[in-house]
Amino acid sequence: MTGAKRRPEDLAILGGDPLFTSPRPIGQLDAPPVEDYLRILRRSFESRRLTNDGPAVQELEQRLCDWHQVGNCISVANAALGLTMLMQLASRGRPGDVAMPAFSFRGLPHLARWAGQTPLFCDVDPATHTLDPADVADRMTDRTNSILAVCNFNDPGDLEGLGELARRRGAPLIIDSVYGFGATHRGRPLGGFGTAEVFSLHATKLLNGFEGGYITTNDDALATALRWQRNFALPGLRPDGLELDHVLGLNAKLNELHAAMALAGLDRVDSIIEGNKARHQAYLEQVDPIPGLALMPCDDSRDRRGFQLAILDVGSPWPLTRDETLKLLRAEGAAVGPYYSPPLHVADARGESVARLPVSEVLARRFVQLPVGELVSLDDIRAIGALLRSVSEHGDAVRARLGRV
Amino acid sequence: MTGAKRRPEDLAILGGDPLFTSPRPIGQLDAPPVEDYLRILRRSFESRRLTNDGPAVQELEQRLCDWHQVGNCISVANAALGLTMLMQLASRGRPGDVAMPAFSFRGLPHLARWAGQTPLFCDVDPATHTLDPADVADRMTDRTNSILAVCNFNDPGDLEGLGELARRRGAPLIIDSVYGFGATHRGRPLGGFGTAEVFSLHATKLLNGFEGGYITTNDDALATALRWQRNFALPGLRPDGLELDHVLGLNAKLNELHAAMALAGLDRVDSIIEGNKARHQAYLEQVDPIPGLALMPCDDSRDRRGFQLAILDVGSPWPLTRDETLKLLRAEGAAVGPYYSPPLHVADARGESVARLPVSEVLARRFVQLPVGELVSLDDIRAIGALLRSVSEHGDAVRARLGRV
Repeated sequence: MTGAKRRPEDLAILGGDPLFTSPRPIGQLDAPPVEDYLRILRRSFESRRLTNDGPAVQELEQRLCDWHQVGNCISVANAALGLTMLMQLASRGRPGDVAMPAFSFRGLPHLARWAGQTPLFCDVDPATHTLDPADVADRMTDRTNSILAVCNFNDPGDLEGLGELARRRGAPLIIDSVYGFGATHRGRPLGGFGTAEVFSLHATKLLNGFEGGYITTNDDALATALRWQRNFALPGLRPDGLELDHVLGLNAKLNELHAAMALAGLDRVDSIIEGNKARHQAYLEQVDPIPGLALMPCDDSRDRRGFQLAILDVGSPWPLTRDETLKLLRAEGAAVGPYYSPPLHVADARGESVARLPVSEVLARRFVQLPVGELVSLDDIRAIGALLRSVSEHGDAVRARLGRV
Repeated sequence: MTGAKRRPEDLAILGGDPLFTSPRPIGQLDAPPVEDYLRILRRSFESRRLTNDGPAVQELEQRLCDWHQVGNCISVANAALGLTMLMQLASRGRPGDVAMPAFSFRGLPHLARWAGQTPLFCDVDPATHTLDPADVADRMTDRTNSILAVCNFNDPGDLEGLGELARRRGAPLIIDSVYGFGATHRGRPLGGFGTAEVFSLHATKLLNGFEGGYITTNDDALATALRWQRNFALPGLRPDGLELDHVLGLNAKLNELHAAMALAGLDRVDSIIEGNKARHQAYLEQVDPIPGLALMPCDDSRDRRGFQLAILDVGSPWPLTRDETLKLLRAEGAAVGPYYSPPLHVADARGESVARLPVSEVLARRFVQLPVGELVSLDDIRAIGALLRSVSEHGDAVRARLGRV
């Protein structure tokens, strides 16, 4: 790390040395001690049972059922495939729509299309930033085959309102809970809400399996269908007694290497969250006093939160726009990104008729996703804070030097 | 292994002890010495670059380009996703058909449907058992967006005839080359034929990455589109200068664990094929003298072959039907299966109009896939041979005991 940046010309964007010589990432990137992991791997390796429901996969699924207090856990090759499988099953093979928040992850509209569905973009609640049941109720039609809600890192959203709407309109409620791992909602762990939830085991997520994901559900018939679907829906393995003619099979199996890695991580979840919370607190102390900047709140006083992300809210009188702030921080070696921006209905409509979604459009202009995770130290966060304070103090000069007076 | 089976009542299906106490599999299941693998893994692990184009993935892709003598290698999470991605790209987003052999792997029709396409089942050549260009030419229409050919373990098929048809009719030729690894066609390695080829790194395949796969192509623009597609087709990473509005993104990235495993296997390919060929030869010696049985030939006198499978051809005067032979061998602990049976147009049509495909229908009744791979010894094969001889010698008695006189 280079020294303090007292003058505008010290900023990397204006020609100074960058604050960080190696980029500070925005993912969790937790890893167990290498020897622990190699010991687990050796066991899988020597059993020669490397894929197709091996012992580590079975143990992981059982432990995650307990963790999430849910009846079924179906591991999959990644969370995106899990969401796609659920939307395909929910469609029962009929073309139609999937209602989803426009203020969310870029990949979602594509996944709906793989499932033969059209994304129906809906607006989010201005306070929680999660799918607004009232807006979904207004937009959904008889063509809407499922509702895809997204659990944000700081708020799972109105799961009761969405669940009630889903029941009333007969559309399964699928929840993308990638950022809900480690969180509870009204005292119950995420994992047992809606028709099914999907979690990720990607290296950037709280529970790291290098790659991978899993689906949780209390619907036993759905779990049986998913297990069959993830292994090509092979005719010889077709489960009895279920209406399955619409199921499209694929290869979405998780294998032992990923399951072993995730198992090695499960015991460290509490300490990972503790670290996340300490970084969150450090950001809060740095950012809060700076005029126009705020850290997106994450309140764990009533329910547990995983504190996976740190989101900077950029507004007046902070001297730079959100996009200038992104460039400023990137030049310093912070691998920052815009948070859920641009909104999906703006960035990814493909001929679908697209309504204005005012809340999503406003929110998508505001936020910067800050560096987080195991590779970001409290000193890094203090250095980012000092940098932001310096920019705030020299606002007019920095703006002028950036050619914007 | 139990002793010789001289009398019908020694057969496991008639109450005797099974030949094998642990099942003999039908997959390759090669593995490097565990220490070699853990050494490679330690390097990946300590780099903390576990996914998203890490060093092992890059090295593997480069080495596979050299291996296949092809311009581009795009690793993917599994071969099924690779085929699905190619069919989706080939469709350019239009609904339509994919011409494919009816005598092939069960998963293929599902993969076409994920890509928004309908399978167009075509017949195979009676000699090579691979997609027959003349039959495809008769059946394909303006709706046919691509041709999916499948390379069999003993014959890649009429790649010139299919290539010529594909060019003439303007439909990309996608080749499922999962069983083409290690093989050449007219002196050139598989990998550079058609528009693109797809290989598997599943543990049961010749090159074992535990899971995973890759696409090879000499079409640079296609390679660029595939790299974008496999990482969610994220708008911020959209490549310049390509027409990409129809691309559906997904998560199909291969990660370091699998790439490291496949790298550890690449140096052993020659010795793996040598072992396969020795097993093939042993089966030939056992099976060939038995009336009504034959081993499906695999000729490497002009071109290299990987000898991945051993397929038993069951006919008169062998005393049992193909399905009885399957039951007989399964009872003995041999994890045998029917080879490409039932044919896809019979097993997996979903409202598509389906023609009679006489060659596929006849072939699908004939073959048994025998145990192969690293976990099957030459002694195992001799024991299977002795068993089959005994059944042949006591044909009438065995048939009578099975309740079929």
